[in-house]
Amino acid sequence: MTLFSNEIVGKPLDEVDTPALLIDAGALERNIARIAAYLADKPARLRPHAKTHKSPIIAHMQLAAGAVGITCAKLGEAEALVEGGIRDILIANQIVGPAKIARLVRLARYADLAVAVDDFENAQQISDAAEAAGTTVRVLVEVNIGMDRCGVEPGQPAVELALRVAELPGLRFFGLQGYEGHLVGVPERAERERRVRAAMEQLIETRRMIEAAGLPVAAVSGGGTGTFDITSTIEGFDEIQAGSYVFMDAWYRRVEGPDTAFEPALFLWSTIVSRPAPDRAVGDIGLKTATPEHGLPTAFGISGVETLSLSEEHVKLRVEGEARSLRPGDKIRFVPGHVCTTVNLHDCYVVVRDGVVEAVWPVAARGHST
Amino acid sequence: MTLFSNEIVGKPLDEVDTPALLIDAGALERNIARIAAYLADKPARLRPHAKTHKSPIIAHMQLAAGAVGITCAKLGEAEALVEGGIRDILIANQIVGPAKIARLVRLARYADLAVAVDDFENAQQISDAAEAAGTTVRVLVEVNIGMDRCGVEPGQPAVELALRVAELPGLRFFGLQGYEGHLVGVPERAERERRVRAAMEQLIETRRMIEAAGLPVAAVSGGGTGTFDITSTIEGFDEIQAGSYVFMDAWYRRVEGPDTAFEPALFLWSTIVSRPAPDRAVGDIGLKTATPEHGLPTAFGISGVETLSLSEEHVKLRVEGEARSLRPGDKIRFVPGHVCTTVNLHDCYVVVRDGVVEAVWPVAARGHST
Repeated sequence: MTLFSNEIVGKPLDEVDTPALLIDAGALERNIARIAAYLADKPARLRPHAKTHKSPIIAHMQLAAGAVGITCAKLGEAEALVEGGIRDILIANQIVGPAKIARLVRLARYADLAVAVDDFENAQQISDAAEAAGTTVRVLVEVNIGMDRCGVEPGQPAVELALRVAELPGLRFFGLQGYEGHLVGVPERAERERRVRAAMEQLIETRRMIEAAGLPVAAVSGGGTGTFDITSTIEGFDEIQAGSYVFMDAWYRRVEGPDTAFEPALFLWSTIVSRPAPDRAVGDIGLKTATPEHGLPTAFGISGVETLSLSEEHVKLRVEGEARSLRPGDKIRFVPGHVCTTVNLHDCYVVVRDGVVEAVWPVAARGHST
Repeated sequence: MTLFSNEIVGKPLDEVDTPALLIDAGALERNIARIAAYLADKPARLRPHAKTHKSPIIAHMQLAAGAVGITCAKLGEAEALVEGGIRDILIANQIVGPAKIARLVRLARYADLAVAVDDFENAQQISDAAEAAGTTVRVLVEVNIGMDRCGVEPGQPAVELALRVAELPGLRFFGLQGYEGHLVGVPERAERERRVRAAMEQLIETRRMIEAAGLPVAAVSGGGTGTFDITSTIEGFDEIQAGSYVFMDAWYRRVEGPDTAFEPALFLWSTIVSRPAPDRAVGDIGLKTATPEHGLPTAFGISGVETLSLSEEHVKLRVEGEARSLRPGDKIRFVPGHVCTTVNLHDCYVVVRDGVVEAVWPVAARGHST
C-alpha cells in the first residue's frame, strides 16, 4: 500500500501501521560513510549496486560520499535511476533483444551507460542501434571467474571478444566485469580471501593480455559486500559493485570480515496478531513482505524471540523471557534475511530518525525487472 | 514495469518483452469450470482465496461459476476487491490494532465482510468500532486444527470464545475457521485424507458443541487446493478456501489427487540472455520475478531444460537435446514453483489466448499486505 507522506512524516514510529519497511536514517548514513572511509586510501573505487535499494535518493547519497558511479542489474532500474538524476550507470548484465536494445539506446541520450556483453552478436546489435540513434554505449566484457553463470571464459576467449567489440562503431570498450558471487558468502575470512584472490587473478591476467594487445582497459569491475575488503587491495581491480552494505542483512552479518562493522539499517516493522499459546506468537510479516532464501528475518531490539517459519502473511515465533509479555497489537522490528529481494516486495521506505518518521521514499525501481 | 494495454493487446506473444507474467486464458477458464463441476453435487461450497490472484476480474469469474463469496488474507486485499465490485468477502486472518480496525469498519459500509478472531479483546475492539460506525462485521472463531499457527484450541476454548463473541453488539457470529495448511501438501493421497479427516473432525465436533449450546453456526470454513476433494465431502463443513487451483503451480502438481487435473494457467515468460557453454543457458527470470520456497520454476513446452538455480535476476539452466539450439534472445515459458508469492512480485498479467495477447490485467492487490 502507498503511504502518504503528508499523513505520516513527523509521527512517532509507534503510529506507523504494519507491515512496513523501515530505514534507520542514522545507520544508513553511517554505513555509507564507513565504506567511503575504508576505501579512501585504496586503489579501487566504489560503484555501489542499486539493485539493493532501487532508490535514486540513496544513490545520490552514495555518490556524494565519493562513489564513482552506480551499478544496477536491469534496464528498468537504470530508467528509474536516470529519472532520479543519476548519470553514470553500469548495467551489470546483458541487454538482449530488439525491444530492450531500443530502450537502452534511447536512455543513453540522458545518461552515460555501460552494459555487460558476453556474445558478439548481442554486442553488434547494440552497436547498430546506438549508431542509428547517434549515440554510443560503453561495454564491459563479462568474464566467468568461477560462478558459472554468464560470461565468457577468462584468457583468450575474453581477449578475442574484447578486441572484436572494441571495433564496433556504436560501442566504447570500457573494460571487464567478473562477479565472484559464488564466493561472497564463504564464511571463513582466510578461505574467502584465498579463493577471491585466485578468481580475480584470472580477471587481472585477462586485463594484462588485452592491454598487451594494445587495447586500453578503463575499468575492471566486480565484487560485493562480502569481498570489497579483499578486492579493493588488488592491483588492476578498479570498481567495487557492493550493494548490501548500505542496509546489511542477517545473512551478510554471518559472514566474517570488516563488513560486519556495517549496521542493520533496514527493518521490517511488524505487529503481533496472535498469542495462541504461552510460548507462541504470530506476527504479520510473511513471504509477501520478507524473503526466505538467505534465512529467516530475525527479531531486533527484543530478546527471547526466535523465528520459526514464514508463511505467506505470517511469521511464527517462539517466545520466552521478556518476550512472553508480547500481546496482540504490540509491534516489533525484524532484520531481513536478504535485503535485496525483501526491498523488491515493498512500494516505499518509512525513514525513521530518533523514533520519528522523517520521510517516505518510494522504492522507485520496485518490480523493474524488465 | 507497467505494460500499456493499448500497445500490447492484439500482438502475438512473441512480441511481449520479458520477464512477464502470463495467464493462459483458456486454461484459467477450464480450471474455474473444473472445480465448479466437481463441487456441484457436494455439500460444501467454494469461497476461493484471492491471495493467489489478487485480481477482482478473476474473483468475478469465480463467482460467476458459482462461488459463494471470496476469501482473502489481508485487509488491503479486501479493499482492492471491494474497489473491484466484490461484496461477500471473508478475511481469513486477525485484524489487529486501531488503525486497521478503523479501516475495516469503514470498508464494511461497502461490502459484507467477515474476519477471523482468536482473542476476545481483539473481537471487542472490532465490535466497539463497528458499533460506533453503525455497522456490523461477521466473525469466525479461528480454531487451531494442528497447524499450530493462529487459532484457539478446538473444543471448550473455541466454544467459550464463540459464545462470548456472539454477545458483542457490533459483531455477527458467522462460524468457525480451521486451516489444515500443514496437510495440504502431504504427497500421498490416502495418508493426506486420513490426516485431514482427523483434523477436520475436531472442527466439526466444536461446531456441534456450539450448536448444542444454542448458537447457530452459519459456516465452517477452511481448506485448500490440496484437500478440497476431501473436505468437500465432510458433513458439517461448508466453505472451501482453495486458491492455487485457479493457476496451479509446480508444487501442487507434485501432490497426488484429483487436483492434478488442473492445468498450469500461469507462466513466467523469459528470454535467454546468455549461452556461455554448450550445456548452459541463462534466462532473465530470478528471485525478483519468481519465488523459490516451494521449488524452482520449471520450463514448459520445451524438453531438455533443467532449472539449476535462481539468483536475483537470473535463472541458470542445464540444456540438452533440442534445447541446445536455444540462442540469446529466444523466449521460453516457465511454470512458477509457487503461484501465490510469484504473483505478488508482478504489477500485471499479460492474458494470452491462442498465442495472441487478449488483455492486460493489473495485479490489483499486489503488495497489499497491510
